[in-house]
Amino acid sequence: METKIGEIEGGTVTSARGFHAGATAAGIRKPDDSRLDLGILFSEEPCVVAGVLTTNRVQSAPVVLCRERLEAGHASAIVACSGCANASTGRQGLSDAAEMASLTADGLGIDADEVLVASTGVIGPRLPIERVRDGLRHISLSDVGGHELARAIMTTDTRPKEFAVTVEAGETSFTIGGIAKGSGMIHPNMATLLAFLATDAAVEGGFLSLALKEAANVSFNMVSVDGDTSPSDTLLVLANGIAGNAVIDGGSDIAGAFEEALQRVCVHLARAIARDGEGATKLIEVTVSGAVNLADACLAARTVVASPLLKSAVYGCDPNWGRVVAALGRSGAAVEETSLDIAIGETTVLKSGAPQPFDEAAVVDQLKRDDVSISANLNLGEASATAWGCDLTEEYVVVNSQYTT
Amino acid sequence: METKIGEIEGGTVTSARGFHAGATAAGIRKPDDSRLDLGILFSEEPCVVAGVLTTNRVQSAPVVLCRERLEAGHASAIVACSGCANASTGRQGLSDAAEMASLTADGLGIDADEVLVASTGVIGPRLPIERVRDGLRHISLSDVGGHELARAIMTTDTRPKEFAVTVEAGETSFTIGGIAKGSGMIHPNMATLLAFLATDAAVEGGFLSLALKEAANVSFNMVSVDGDTSPSDTLLVLANGIAGNAVIDGGSDIAGAFEEALQRVCVHLARAIARDGEGATKLIEVTVSGAVNLADACLAARTVVASPLLKSAVYGCDPNWGRVVAALGRSGAAVEETSLDIAIGETTVLKSGAPQPFDEAAVVDQLKRDDVSISANLNLGEASATAWGCDLTEEYVVVNSQYTT
Repeated sequence: METKIGEIEGGTVTSARGFHAGATAAGIRKPDDSRLDLGILFSEEPCVVAGVLTTNRVQSAPVVLCRERLEAGHASAIVACSGCANASTGRQGLSDAAEMASLTADGLGIDADEVLVASTGVIGPRLPIERVRDGLRHISLSDVGGHELARAIMTTDTRPKEFAVTVEAGETSFTIGGIAKGSGMIHPNMATLLAFLATDAAVEGGFLSLALKEAANVSFNMVSVDGDTSPSDTLLVLANGIAGNAVIDGGSDIAGAFEEALQRVCVHLARAIARDGEGATKLIEVTVSGAVNLADACLAARTVVASPLLKSAVYGCDPNWGRVVAALGRSGAAVEETSLDIAIGETTVLKSGAPQPFDEAAVVDQLKRDDVSISANLNLGEASATAWGCDLTEEYVVVNSQYTT
Repeated sequence: METKIGEIEGGTVTSARGFHAGATAAGIRKPDDSRLDLGILFSEEPCVVAGVLTTNRVQSAPVVLCRERLEAGHASAIVACSGCANASTGRQGLSDAAEMASLTADGLGIDADEVLVASTGVIGPRLPIERVRDGLRHISLSDVGGHELARAIMTTDTRPKEFAVTVEAGETSFTIGGIAKGSGMIHPNMATLLAFLATDAAVEGGFLSLALKEAANVSFNMVSVDGDTSPSDTLLVLANGIAGNAVIDGGSDIAGAFEEALQRVCVHLARAIARDGEGATKLIEVTVSGAVNLADACLAARTVVASPLLKSAVYGCDPNWGRVVAALGRSGAAVEETSLDIAIGETTVLKSGAPQPFDEAAVVDQLKRDDVSISANLNLGEASATAWGCDLTEEYVVVNSQYTT
């Protein structure tokens, strides 16, 4: 079947039909803070939902609540705040998260268990539930409100992350939109901090869950900012079926198109998170090919992109390719030194394990770009993977040495 | 048996009897560089040797050579240089490392296979073997030359790392001395970059190897500067038997005293490496107790001490204990949030998973010290472990963004 996936200019999570969002400055951080920090995503029709949650052994109260409610497989809304993670807050935190959901449900006229909750920010402090209560009264929802919600979930992010695509597959046409936030405690093998996706397609729950996991594996799970992972990582997708298509499941003609579109949204948001990593000045894309299997390719790519030494070298535009070799070697992936090729941008610097003479000025120029690509061919097999990260700068340290105080 | 282990003031690797060392400025980095960068450790009697080498899949030429020669179990000398790692240098690198050993052996009048080799510095460039040849002619050995050798192996280290102890056990008295260098590409679960130990005790080879591995596990393998590991990691111990004791093996009365002394030297050097981590302003010591087993305790302690977010917070004297929780949670160790206690210095900030009110100014004062201690009790078992690291500062980024260029 012919399918066409097109990017929606200015697209966001409310680009999918029937989704409304809004946000307010509730003063979660401090009463007088004027940043948007509390928001709602709401579907006018009940949704099939799926999620990928943190694998950290310590889980925030909202994650615990989402894990329970995702089992039901349906929901209509997400309420999210930034400035307080509501993590490491014990029983009080669980009751605060539940209250945040109930207050939202009351305002929307739906059942409390139809509301998912997400919070991001400092770990430890109690959620200021009175400010949440007041704030919720001031949120008005609209079908362009995704932009506000994308801002409301930002912590150290310098810009919102939003994206949407339309899919035309045979007779069917639907939209998938999404928003996400970074930008610290970001590391492969976890869903990233917060990402909410919405589609108007009708999708079967089991298939939606599987498609989301696959999309996370090639997108959010391939991003690293700093090797730290969070107790709040939450990736959610809501599908409200307003597009009126025949319900998509694993056997549908358009299952592949749906998966591809979902991955495209996730990869776009994941790259945006990497590019906006704390203190980052550029995006680093590492592609490893020729691995003996996919797990090795992922491991190798993620290890290179997460190496603080490589990240520092890229920041300084230093063509120190030996750090790529060192990271590949320690990654745990099968690596044979004498088979290894490495390129920075289009310039090969190592071929079959032998250093190649190269034009240093040209490579430095490539390292000066906003997008730096590094590729390694292990020449041992057929598998390949791409990971994204960012450079390590003085600003990362500045941001993170003064976060709570 | 009564044993006494005493620190030798100003002790170094040549504090053990019969060991001589020296170094020169061979211009390994650049011909006109005046830093010491090439040195020799030599024992006047043949030694039993043991080593722990990198587990990186990419191995420097000197590591490959050491691995071969360590199998013989005996050696008389180590030749080491800094400024060039002789790694990722292919067959040329292997022949250069072998030539570096031969030239050293010729000068000392011993067999080439009695010489071990270690190199540290930039990965990729070829070893300037002519400068090594010239340099070796200018090295004169002495029994205080350990101080020079400790300087000659420094790269981004700001100070040499040296330590020695004397052991009196019954009728026997012997010395163990050592030197080490950091200070980047340092991460747990590998031997650290370069460390050479020397003892005048007579020690059986198998026991020496075992004792060294055990000492590495509680010292160098518990240090992290930046999560990156090196193809050059080399820890060597030489025992020349000049003390005249009955050969120590696993069944000896003084086996325990020897192991304890070896660990004390290794822990001292490991802490010195952590404290002098690239850009570091302070030492961080993380102790995890109450783990279900030792592997979990080590994993948890190392994960916390390596967290860039915690390291940044310690640099900024920010009592952001939530980052300790997050790191423990993702460490892979068994952690129950409701059992968890955390203290910064002597101040408990979390008890049974519940945040405790604390005097923030007092904790900030503790974070301002040169030595910052953080402890976590998982309250799940009896095992404990300590790991060492350093804070993450803007200077780390500066150092590593301008390393080769």
